[in-house]
Amino acid sequence: MKLANGVIRHTFGAPEKFSCLRTLSFTPRRKELASLSDPTPPFSREEIGFSSSSKGTVFTLPLTPGERLYGFGLQLKSFEQTGKKRIVRNNADPQADSGDSHAPAPFYLSTKGYAVLVDTARYAKFYTGCAKRLDGVRGADKQLGLNVQELYAATGGGNQVYVEIPFAQGADIYLFTGEDMRDALARYILYCGGGVLPPLWGLGIHYRTKTDFTAEEISSVVRELRDLDMPCDMIGVEPGWHTHAYSCTYQWDKFRFPNPDRWIGEMADHHIHLNLWQHVFTHPDNELYEPLREYSGDFEVWGGLTPDLSIPGCQTLISDYQQQNFASKGIGGVKLDECDGSDYTGGWSYPEFASFPSGMDGEQMHSLIGGLYQQAVNDAFEHSGARTWSLVRASGAGACSFPFVLYSDLYEHRDFIRGLCTAPLSGLLWAPEVRQCESREELIRRMQSAAVSPMMCLNNWMLRLPPWKQFDYEKNLREELLPDWEDLFAACKQAAQLRMSLVPYLYTAFFRYWQTGVPPIRPLVLDHPDDPAVFGVDDQVMIGDSLMAAPCVAGETRREVTFPQGAWRCFYTGRRFDGGQRVTVDAPLERLPLFVQEGACIPLAKPLPYLSGDTVFDITLRGYGEGPMKAVLYTDDGESFRFRQGAYSLLTARVDGQGKVTASSSGEYADDRYRIVGFKRM
Amino acid sequence: MKLANGVIRHTFGAPEKFSCLRTLSFTPRRKELASLSDPTPPFSREEIGFSSSSKGTVFTLPLTPGERLYGFGLQLKSFEQTGKKRIVRNNADPQADSGDSHAPAPFYLSTKGYAVLVDTARYAKFYTGCAKRLDGVRGADKQLGLNVQELYAATGGGNQVYVEIPFAQGADIYLFTGEDMRDALARYILYCGGGVLPPLWGLGIHYRTKTDFTAEEISSVVRELRDLDMPCDMIGVEPGWHTHAYSCTYQWDKFRFPNPDRWIGEMADHHIHLNLWQHVFTHPDNELYEPLREYSGDFEVWGGLTPDLSIPGCQTLISDYQQQNFASKGIGGVKLDECDGSDYTGGWSYPEFASFPSGMDGEQMHSLIGGLYQQAVNDAFEHSGARTWSLVRASGAGACSFPFVLYSDLYEHRDFIRGLCTAPLSGLLWAPEVRQCESREELIRRMQSAAVSPMMCLNNWMLRLPPWKQFDYEKNLREELLPDWEDLFAACKQAAQLRMSLVPYLYTAFFRYWQTGVPPIRPLVLDHPDDPAVFGVDDQVMIGDSLMAAPCVAGETRREVTFPQGAWRCFYTGRRFDGGQRVTVDAPLERLPLFVQEGACIPLAKPLPYLSGDTVFDITLRGYGEGPMKAVLYTDDGESFRFRQGAYSLLTARVDGQGKVTASSSGEYADDRYRIVGFKRM
Repeated sequence: MKLANGVIRHTFGAPEKFSCLRTLSFTPRRKELASLSDPTPPFSREEIGFSSSSKGTVFTLPLTPGERLYGFGLQLKSFEQTGKKRIVRNNADPQADSGDSHAPAPFYLSTKGYAVLVDTARYAKFYTGCAKRLDGVRGADKQLGLNVQELYAATGGGNQVYVEIPFAQGADIYLFTGEDMRDALARYILYCGGGVLPPLWGLGIHYRTKTDFTAEEISSVVRELRDLDMPCDMIGVEPGWHTHAYSCTYQWDKFRFPNPDRWIGEMADHHIHLNLWQHVFTHPDNELYEPLREYSGDFEVWGGLTPDLSIPGCQTLISDYQQQNFASKGIGGVKLDECDGSDYTGGWSYPEFASFPSGMDGEQMHSLIGGLYQQAVNDAFEHSGARTWSLVRASGAGACSFPFVLYSDLYEHRDFIRGLCTAPLSGLLWAPEVRQCESREELIRRMQSAAVSPMMCLNNWMLRLPPWKQFDYEKNLREELLPDWEDLFAACKQAAQLRMSLVPYLYTAFFRYWQTGVPPIRPLVLDHPDDPAVFGVDDQVMIGDSLMAAPCVAGETRREVTFPQGAWRCFYTGRRFDGGQRVTVDAPLERLPLFVQEGACIPLAKPLPYLSGDTVFDITLRGYGEGPMKAVLYTDDGESFRFRQGAYSLLTARVDGQGKVTASSSGEYADDRYRIVGFKRM
Repeated sequence: MKLANGVIRHTFGAPEKFSCLRTLSFTPRRKELASLSDPTPPFSREEIGFSSSSKGTVFTLPLTPGERLYGFGLQLKSFEQTGKKRIVRNNADPQADSGDSHAPAPFYLSTKGYAVLVDTARYAKFYTGCAKRLDGVRGADKQLGLNVQELYAATGGGNQVYVEIPFAQGADIYLFTGEDMRDALARYILYCGGGVLPPLWGLGIHYRTKTDFTAEEISSVVRELRDLDMPCDMIGVEPGWHTHAYSCTYQWDKFRFPNPDRWIGEMADHHIHLNLWQHVFTHPDNELYEPLREYSGDFEVWGGLTPDLSIPGCQTLISDYQQQNFASKGIGGVKLDECDGSDYTGGWSYPEFASFPSGMDGEQMHSLIGGLYQQAVNDAFEHSGARTWSLVRASGAGACSFPFVLYSDLYEHRDFIRGLCTAPLSGLLWAPEVRQCESREELIRRMQSAAVSPMMCLNNWMLRLPPWKQFDYEKNLREELLPDWEDLFAACKQAAQLRMSLVPYLYTAFFRYWQTGVPPIRPLVLDHPDDPAVFGVDDQVMIGDSLMAAPCVAGETRREVTFPQGAWRCFYTGRRFDGGQRVTVDAPLERLPLFVQEGACIPLAKPLPYLSGDTVFDITLRGYGEGPMKAVLYTDDGESFRFRQGAYSLLTARVDGQGKVTASSSGEYADDRYRIVGFKRM
């Protein structure tokens, strides 16, 4: 069944009542999809094998030699997903490359220009070309592998994707087809109601404070940040604001926060948007406990209720509560913690066999609760008319339209960078947050990779001092200042200011995300699905259409960078690199390696300490290459949903061959949100 | 239904056709069980909750406050299993503490003196006191946890064990009850036909050679070991002996092994028992390929067949082949590799939804294939009349009677020591094998912990030189000798000689294992289930009744040792330690920390380079403490199954208060297998 241009749904057997796309609420972007081409699907319904038994459903999907697959949601441990077994299982602690994730998705994307969503909330297993049926054809006789590399190179040589869904007697399969892989992904994202546009302040810097800090202590953090001219738009408040947090009361602890409303106002006066930590497991002290009982699962979590948010009445109760108590009181965002499943910390969730009043079981709830919880909170902000830019620890398929960024308690920096490459390939957002570190170098490198992510977040929930004053956890708690912390601070501030200077460019890229479904931060393969040289590149990202970041980890002073076809320039020096090669470049500690597509003009803002709806950016255009070029800058009120009705402007700054700049604008906002103060040809 | 004294089976619903105890063949030790007491079960059938639905079965089992649970097979990542979620899932790469294991078992053991086996071959989930049904009783209000430790201390406070079995519409639950926890475990092991008695040479040292070594190269390894007087009883031959190994041909590569029969004989002349690597996935070049096709699963693995060993005809084919080609040709043992499931290496096994001619599916086969494969190979050795002491990488419940020791590709030393504590609690055997190392210290410490394990195995499959000549992998391949390798060798040899001196003591402990089901190497909690101080001790083991080892890892020069009730002596110095305390002891690198129960007499053999049926041991008795004492020593022909018919001797050496030794023996073997050459009071 054709649902939109490039979007087809095939229903097989009797799908379960609950699944990602059946259960989550979103509004397909029909207008945008209608304006796109109507490509031929990669394969017909008849080419999809389907069987079901009392143990569930097995699908067999075509896979052609040379085809490469990506996706499966946020994957921290691997990038390319061809030739693997993937278990689509929500897990708080995805330590191994099994498919487990905070945000797994039964979704994959092919370099052949299509995407597949097997719409299930079960822990489905995908065998992406690694399983081969015994068919009487003798397999290729590889030579005997006698070392580890050779042994591990042995693969099953499968030529199908097998999908095993436990219990289900059928499922919907969605096929998304586009002009190329990126376009197919965009169709998926648009169909699911995305992409999302953050409030302008969401692109600023998020600083989370120690979990037991009082309002006064947090206020003094803010004063210090402002005194140091360290940019900050969001302050995160961790569990200590609740009277009881595991489970949650959602009530301010009056010892630490004697007058929350006044304090929220004070923070607002400092242009600070507060982000409140919470999870969904509701403590008996909360007023919703009794009304929620009839909507809750049959197992306690930390003595609290697990609301069944798939029931509209339950969604409304929680959404209204979040609106009245947080969104409408000026809280800018929330951090939805612990909503994934947990295998390693006993009792940190409900069992898979738990049952919920809607008829959902625990396995399905683990897959869906992250999305449902985002939906409830998002509704609260939608009804308040204020955009949010929040955090969540669990998500999945169909959640593209929720303005929530994923984070993790894991911390391997390489994995965190990889997340920037994998999350967008399922329409998800990922924050490689910065916490305590082993070294100054690590802290600086982490700040740099956070600077080119959907949310630049410093999560100091365990730290007394800011990390630049002491990166080591134990010493930080003892308040042992680094003797030369000012130097480290300067390097951290440099990364923060890089971020702030990129805000207009990023904001515009996010607008394109909303408009077209093309992720603003994405791996190289999405733009170059025919170039085998980029198939495995999981440590570089495109930002918008013209910038490419190649973050370093501690220990690297140079690194290899893959330059896709075309020509490239060093962001800092203008040095030219031919595309189609892999080059070792110097990567001095103070600089995030950044490159610009030749011919592009990058608008850079003078860094500001915070962002607001009436912020005026002083923009310097940097032209990389010769001849005329242009930059486009998006603006709106920065916080409401009026942009959906066209209340925005696009300013086009054109530079001619002689470097003369002319700007023209369309839309309701005056050009003076952006003051073009200079042009520099690099 | 009472099956034996202390062994009860309750059948709930309609159990599946395949399960651990229904599918594996073993002969309960009815005679031994009949001689034991007939204790009251810990709870009645009525106290077990049972429900089933289309998604499977859920059991609810009683759990009382303070009760501690252990078991679930080989668990490398954790020891005590109370308050956890465990997934009983066979996995080649169990990187996280989820229950996944090479040898998971749906089996747990309680300090209250009973054990439970939920007899399923499904990936069952156990919630051992971490899940609590919403029951209207407001949970204990813990204070708000505001640091990581406090947060992670939060538990669900459950007072039940929940067991979720997917798909199954019922299952048998076995209850094993004894006088205490150790006795309950012994009933389980005896019921499953265990414990196992190795051939005498199985307690010697196992040295595995590089995978591509030729017969000539292996022979020269043996000559070198003999020249250096380094003990060795077993030589392991890795994949390179096959003409094609992934999948397996089971045929000698005639380039590397031009005359296998003659070479096996030469090795036997050197008192070397060969151990041949193999896995079960059968290559088309093997003569069994065609006859096995009708017995095989519907998915290829490495182009080979997966035989359905649950079908008697298939068992016979493979067992006969193993007998004719290996057991009857003087091969001492095998290494059954790759028979676990794999999530991380695509194509390294069949999918869970694969189907097999018996009606079994891939999930069940993953759980059972390790045991079934052991069974087939064990039958080959049984029919040849020769005991084996083999290796296997997958096992589970019901496999207690198979003479196979588990190993892993993982390598964390602490985890390997923990395996010595966890495996025996499910009647399994574990080899913390030694491979390449990061440091000399690590190599020595690993040799020491291997010395007190069921199989002391050096797995040099990737190494050209022995590890004492170069512990570093890369340098080893380049044959860069350590300048002072003789010193390192001396320390390694010391560990090997410690092992060889303990052989008579260990052999006797294994005889007791066969006789009584009490594991010869076991964690402290098994002997002291009422002592909370030992509940968490996962880095010390009892060996037999009187020895206690506390292995160190690299970096430790002292360590804390928990001394259970009673009094203890240092094995080396006789220094006395009061029981009931935890003491920091010095642990110089050259010595494995070893302690002896006061009053015990330990028989130590003069180390020999190898063991055989006519070996005569020169025994020095070491008496720890004052007064009369005794040591018992078991002997038999060392290799056949005649001990089962009573063809063995037990020699009792008694020492009086003055140190005079008198020996008496029962049974058919002459006392002169053991020559008591001295007594030393420590």
